Amino acid sequence: MASLATILQAVRVRYTLPPDEVFQSVAASVAEHMAAYDASHDFHHVLRVTALSKTILMAESQAHDPTVVLLAALLHDVTDKKYTRPEDGSKLAEILASASVSPDLSASIVEVVNNVSYSTEMRNPDWTRQVLSQHPELGIVQDADRLDAIGAVGIGRTFTFGGAKTPHSSMQLSREHISEKLVKLKGLMKTETGRQMARERTERLQLFSSWWDEECTP
Amino acid sequence: MASLATILQAVRVRYTLPPDEVFQSVAASVAEHMAAYDASHDFHHVLRVTALSKTILMAESQAHDPTVVLLAALLHDVTDKKYTRPEDGSKLAEILASASVSPDLSASIVEVVNNVSYSTEMRNPDWTRQVLSQHPELGIVQDADRLDAIGAVGIGRTFTFGGAKTPHSSMQLSREHISEKLVKLKGLMKTETGRQMARERTERLQLFSSWWDEECTP
Repeated sequence: MASLATILQAVRVRYTLPPDEVFQSVAASVAEHMAAYDASHDFHHVLRVTALSKTILMAESQAHDPTVVLLAALLHDVTDKKYTRPEDGSKLAEILASASVSPDLSASIVEVVNNVSYSTEMRNPDWTRQVLSQHPELGIVQDADRLDAIGAVGIGRTFTFGGAKTPHSSMQLSREHISEKLVKLKGLMKTETGRQMARERTERLQLFSSWWDEECTP
Repeated sequence: MASLATILQAVRVRYTLPPDEVFQSVAASVAEHMAAYDASHDFHHVLRVTALSKTILMAESQAHDPTVVLLAALLHDVTDKKYTRPEDGSKLAEILASASVSPDLSASIVEVVNNVSYSTEMRNPDWTRQVLSQHPELGIVQDADRLDAIGAVGIGRTFTFGGAKTPHSSMQLSREHISEKLVKLKGLMKTETGRQMARERTERLQLFSSWWDEECTP
């Protein structure tokens, strides 16, 4: 697994970034806040999404604000509705302020984070498109988050989430979640890099599902 | 998923069995007892292991007592040490007695169930060999249980168990469990049918692991 320092170093080859301390401060707050989440949405997930965001950022030709991409990736699950209460809404701004991020930059990052989620996009795709046109960084973080929901890691996360949240529900629900939601995520990719990476991971979901179905009908 | 009635019907083509009611009574007690377990060791697991035991029983040429095979498969996780306390030790005999299984048959089934587990075999492989020579049915139930621990279903069960039992431990532990234990199970198969079925499911574990490792080093 890539460390945050390695990710920042790779981005600095092409872009100017605030000092590492800003990112490390945000990462420490995120890790502390998400320690209460289960392993399907832990700080390892956040680091993978940040590393994937870096990969997409470096591969895309369109201009993006790299600081918005990386800080939004680090923060993207802090207000996840599956784990938090509405009163945690100000958490993002607090974490950014305590890392001395300027109010303007903070507002952009919060806007991106508030629009990453699949359910937010499903409820109002027009609104997501509008935010995307103002903050193209959103597309990178969405794609990275969705790439981590598919492939082998996505499979592991689906069953881990099921075990943690609904331990007495049949695993068949996790199997069906793959066909009902995960294989469709590649159609929602916003960047060309994300779309390409989603192709192979989606094939992995399909192969795994065919194994599962065969093993469950002996 | 095969129902218990379908499994019994398939076995009756070649073997004489006690009335369906005996198996249904045991199955109902097992389902009730295991409702407290998480989805990695639920009644669906029991049914898959019973169906796999049937498949191996029907494919093997060596003589086996089909009633011992099927009842031991149904009961094999009732005293699983990951979920039960030592005082649950008499549970097996109680369930069999309430299904009117004779004391002699019950003793054989309990002997098989008490020796299915991987950790029991690892602690004393000579003892397992001795029980196997007296009760070859043990080999069938062990192979069926281990087949359900590998392949796509084994992967799903590993992450589900991790999510349910240790929700705050990294998923990487589940990934490592595949290499450290699951890929080795095929070397412990007791029947030729089990060995053959384990081959493909072990390749699935290996392919999944290579996907995981690649996705975790972006």
